[in-house]
Amino acid sequence: MATTTSDTHEPRMCDAALSRAFDVIGKRWNGVILGTLSSGPAGFAELRRAVGGISDSVLSERLTELAATGLVQRTVTDGPPVTVEYSLAESGVAFLPAMRALSAWAKDHLPRN
Amino acid sequence: MATTTSDTHEPRMCDAALSRAFDVIGKRWNGVILGTLSSGPAGFAELRRAVGGISDSVLSERLTELAATGLVQRTVTDGPPVTVEYSLAESGVAFLPAMRALSAWAKDHLPRN
Repeated sequence: MATTTSDTHEPRMCDAALSRAFDVIGKRWNGVILGTLSSGPAGFAELRRAVGGISDSVLSERLTELAATGLVQRTVTDGPPVTVEYSLAESGVAFLPAMRALSAWAKDHLPRN
Repeated sequence: MATTTSDTHEPRMCDAALSRAFDVIGKRWNGVILGTLSSGPAGFAELRRAVGGISDSVLSERLTELAATGLVQRTVTDGPPVTVEYSLAESGVAFLPAMRALSAWAKDHLPRN
């Protein structure tokens, strides 16, 4: 039976903060929603078009979660007409450098199909 | 009915490369697997322990996908005993800077629960 050499080193673990990051962006659609908002504020319908394949209810749920995490903010402007827009909140703006690093990596290492 | 201001700017889109990155790390477990291997090679059982909650079959499937993407490599050493180890392949090593950026962001913006 194949054994591993794990008994000769400290047990491997994912860094706790990195694990928390993946709890957010490892959830389907969250990354692309944040990536879409990195190009500027957008309304719900626009986000749904940009994030191909997501349903209204899932998009609404994700936006609520991302807002609760401080990544996204929802702005209602009275108008008329009343306008509702989503944009990156403080933690979302702080996520931009990581998104740039992910994009740079993917350009070199995840070729288009 | 609330309208959005989307008619006054280019349609928002997620950067294509960033979207490809999220295709990989937006898939549950992939990020934590890569994060675990960033601390060094590990055997299957060790990975399963480190990535809490994943089943053998899903871990095996993910490792196969990550290997096909060039992120992870599987090394069999004849021994005896035969040892099987997984480690970051070239694209996985190239992913380390993005993981560091994600971890740094999460330390500041995703506090422990």
